[in-house]
Amino acid sequence: MTINQLPTENWRTIVAQRRKDLDSKIPQEWRLKENFLSSLARPNHLLASNAVRKSGILTEAELDLTENYDAAQLLQKLATGELSSVAVTTAFCKRAAIAQQLTSCLTEHFFDFALERAKYLDEYLKREKKVVGPLHGLPISMKDSYHVKGYHTTIGYVSFLEQGLATSNSAVVDMLLDLGAVLYVKTNIPQTMLTADSDNNIYGRTLNPHNTTLTAGGSTGGEGALLALRGSLIGVGTDVAGSIRIPALCCGIYGFKPTTARIPYGGQVRFLYEGPPSVEPCAGPMAATFEDLELFMSTILDAEPWRYDVTTLAAPRSRPSVEPLLTIGILAADEKYPLHPPVKRALQSAIEALTRKGHRIVYLDNDTNKDLDIAYANRLFWQYGTYSPRLDHITPSGEPLVTSVAKGPSPMVTGSFPISKDLGIFETIHELHHKRQQYRDAWRKVWVETGIDVILAPGAQNTAVSHDTYAWPPYTVVWNLLDYPACIIPYGQASKELDPEPMAINDGMQPGYDPDAVDGAPCALQIITSRFQDEKCLAAARIIDRGIRE
Amino acid sequence: MTINQLPTENWRTIVAQRRKDLDSKIPQEWRLKENFLSSLARPNHLLASNAVRKSGILTEAELDLTENYDAAQLLQKLATGELSSVAVTTAFCKRAAIAQQLTSCLTEHFFDFALERAKYLDEYLKREKKVVGPLHGLPISMKDSYHVKGYHTTIGYVSFLEQGLATSNSAVVDMLLDLGAVLYVKTNIPQTMLTADSDNNIYGRTLNPHNTTLTAGGSTGGEGALLALRGSLIGVGTDVAGSIRIPALCCGIYGFKPTTARIPYGGQVRFLYEGPPSVEPCAGPMAATFEDLELFMSTILDAEPWRYDVTTLAAPRSRPSVEPLLTIGILAADEKYPLHPPVKRALQSAIEALTRKGHRIVYLDNDTNKDLDIAYANRLFWQYGTYSPRLDHITPSGEPLVTSVAKGPSPMVTGSFPISKDLGIFETIHELHHKRQQYRDAWRKVWVETGIDVILAPGAQNTAVSHDTYAWPPYTVVWNLLDYPACIIPYGQASKELDPEPMAINDGMQPGYDPDAVDGAPCALQIITSRFQDEKCLAAARIIDRGIRE
Repeated sequence: MTINQLPTENWRTIVAQRRKDLDSKIPQEWRLKENFLSSLARPNHLLASNAVRKSGILTEAELDLTENYDAAQLLQKLATGELSSVAVTTAFCKRAAIAQQLTSCLTEHFFDFALERAKYLDEYLKREKKVVGPLHGLPISMKDSYHVKGYHTTIGYVSFLEQGLATSNSAVVDMLLDLGAVLYVKTNIPQTMLTADSDNNIYGRTLNPHNTTLTAGGSTGGEGALLALRGSLIGVGTDVAGSIRIPALCCGIYGFKPTTARIPYGGQVRFLYEGPPSVEPCAGPMAATFEDLELFMSTILDAEPWRYDVTTLAAPRSRPSVEPLLTIGILAADEKYPLHPPVKRALQSAIEALTRKGHRIVYLDNDTNKDLDIAYANRLFWQYGTYSPRLDHITPSGEPLVTSVAKGPSPMVTGSFPISKDLGIFETIHELHHKRQQYRDAWRKVWVETGIDVILAPGAQNTAVSHDTYAWPPYTVVWNLLDYPACIIPYGQASKELDPEPMAINDGMQPGYDPDAVDGAPCALQIITSRFQDEKCLAAARIIDRGIRE
Repeated sequence: MTINQLPTENWRTIVAQRRKDLDSKIPQEWRLKENFLSSLARPNHLLASNAVRKSGILTEAELDLTENYDAAQLLQKLATGELSSVAVTTAFCKRAAIAQQLTSCLTEHFFDFALERAKYLDEYLKREKKVVGPLHGLPISMKDSYHVKGYHTTIGYVSFLEQGLATSNSAVVDMLLDLGAVLYVKTNIPQTMLTADSDNNIYGRTLNPHNTTLTAGGSTGGEGALLALRGSLIGVGTDVAGSIRIPALCCGIYGFKPTTARIPYGGQVRFLYEGPPSVEPCAGPMAATFEDLELFMSTILDAEPWRYDVTTLAAPRSRPSVEPLLTIGILAADEKYPLHPPVKRALQSAIEALTRKGHRIVYLDNDTNKDLDIAYANRLFWQYGTYSPRLDHITPSGEPLVTSVAKGPSPMVTGSFPISKDLGIFETIHELHHKRQQYRDAWRKVWVETGIDVILAPGAQNTAVSHDTYAWPPYTVVWNLLDYPACIIPYGQASKELDPEPMAINDGMQPGYDPDAVDGAPCALQIITSRFQDEKCLAAARIIDRGIRE
């Protein structure tokens, strides 16, 4: 293993140059007017203020095609030639440029490259009378951790700027290109990729378009902000503890964390020891609509992703038959991680709506059954993540830790390490493995004994909260430990009128509920199935997503 | 981790008692006459001598139903009541008892328990007018490593006899019972489960029914012998280096090593550190006919094995559409592991037959492309298996190593360790992981670049060979390292007339070809697909199995 060399210049100089370079690539005519923000009625509330429209940068036609269609609909128009890829790409590039200026959601943008590609695709369609692939002409965004040849992959480490530009594409990048997509941006993440605040010393902090005083979530936070502003319809994220789902629930969009090894994860930037037993990260989609989550999953799975990526299993897409009336298991809140009132209210409202629809509701006993203890699972996850050494990518550049990383959120406030810290490495690995299998087995019994089709759970105890206060995400982590697919559905919003009472959590770690601070923030639900039942998870989530809105 | 206590008695005394107990459970009327073997025309050739029929123990009806039907056909007759489970079970119990007396293929037999169960199933069918499940009334055998409540699980370690009887069933055992199967025997394995000679100090050595001077293979060798004698039609094995496939090819039966985590492996006896990164073992079927491999796989996969076993993924069975004309990649032999003439001849004959049928043959370049090097893959496998400490289950009882274990077959005669042995544990794990990913990626490119549907390969360089000479199995191990599904199909046999010239291999490890010793031994083919394409592997193997015989 090698540690990066010390950079030759002071980190601030390097970062200033990088920011300048990136900024210079936004064309003059796509720049917000000076004092644009202060011209808005509610400058912190970009969505409520309709900031994109107000900017005047997009034409009416561009506003229409970025706001009134999902990806499947655009693809249809692109395939028939009703819309050109240049038109669609221009519109999303403009919108992404605006999103970047408003929320710092990007780490790379290559609008020229995208428009060249779009032009090629338009000409191809005209000449060949057929599409390159099922994603022909559609702009798709992706998290910074994916390599795109010729561009930076820093994941927020200043020291990684010294590594130069990517010399090859990540597997999913190659795949998307072969399927006909247009790549135009990479999106912002936290320094270390391990917090829920997408903030780093190179690209700054991603703001939440619903309320810029709140976090956009992380680690795929740039996608969250970009998708909420419809600067993209589909983005590709990664998730090892909630990195797809946290920004989805913070930003009021859809996110799906598949089972590991289904969507190509391979060929991303490496920053950890690989191989030691751990909770595995996975790749998955985030989208403005539920339909587009499904579109991404079915398109990728049907295109044999294992041909692009050796970390992906050659498992074909299944087509589960899901009954229209589901048996839904409701996860009980863990008393160590109490739900904020708006989260509780959203969940309760969903349960009532689903009950009215005739779905069967089963309340799970994970709050009283010690074998299912969520706080314990989080501590086990933590021990998995901390028994092997970390590589240090901070010291080489001399940059400081950002606030959220320096705070070091951990689940250890709820109890002790599941396994003695005095064991040798092999004994530690053996015991971790054994405890995880035990925990997985306890959940296996839940499926068998209750007969549930899916689990309905909160995505987090809180909505988006003030910057650098998100803390530890217990309700996403548990499904990573189990390697269960989990889908975030936006539903409802925080309201200081409906939930006027603040709620303190006094563990020194978790954020309390502040009715004023989070008023209007999106709420969300999480839908979970067993390991490898990704297709069933989506099929059930579709039923639930419709059921709660009708 | 705890090591077993020292036994209180000398190991020979314990073993003598165990053998006596086991033997006493064979009813008098199922015992071979004294000097039975010497009454046979060719006492070493049990199949050619028709030893089971000659024993006179089975009725004509019992001979008929054990010899002239596959499991699917018997299940149909069992489901309609045309055959009773008691009749079928009695016949297979008798046959298994004979097989045990001829080849030492069993470690447990519980004929009384089986017949009670059969009676229950018959009564159930009569009373309820329906079957318990799709395997209603069918006797199924399994490797000793599976726990069956109330019986021993020693995997050939004398020290494990002291652990007492199993107190719970392995997951697949529970599953088979719920599906209606009858359990009646567990089958012999090598001491340590890590050689191709199923020989241990408790249950002795399993002999090959084709020729008892040859190995039955291992580690699921008892199944190989039992199935070849049709003392069972379907057996459940495990495979981490060839343990399903080696006995299958030695005994002239079918065997299928699935991708890991598809068939329940969980709840077996533990004898290694669990958790450290390694090549994972898997569970799979061995059968007298190809159809019964498919029957086992489809029945288990359709019954949601993940509900029984937390180590099994909830991946539904896929139904791949496989074209009737395949593109078949032919694995080149590795010069370090040259093929014995009969193995070469069988492969060549299959290629000719498949070419005649119109299949497209593509010769793979793994002999010249260093990235695909099979000998290297075997050394990498070996380093995976040896970097973490072994638990010692031999010393506690004082038993000696059996010959094949003492010889310590290894692939290290072909070259050096892929990774420096001086690295720390985490660096070692990281490098092993990286090298395996590289190797897998090289094979990924083969599928993409050649467009092959399947790989056709030898199962081994040799047929069954004389006891304790089998050595290292390079042509099965490589697919474990890759975690590819692999199917053994019996095809042809060794012939000293057709291949009269002996062939020496002078690496001090691999067995040479001895035309006299292996004359008449079965030959076999191996069919391989990519990771998780188990269903496609079987679909293609079916086409090939038919194609080579028509």
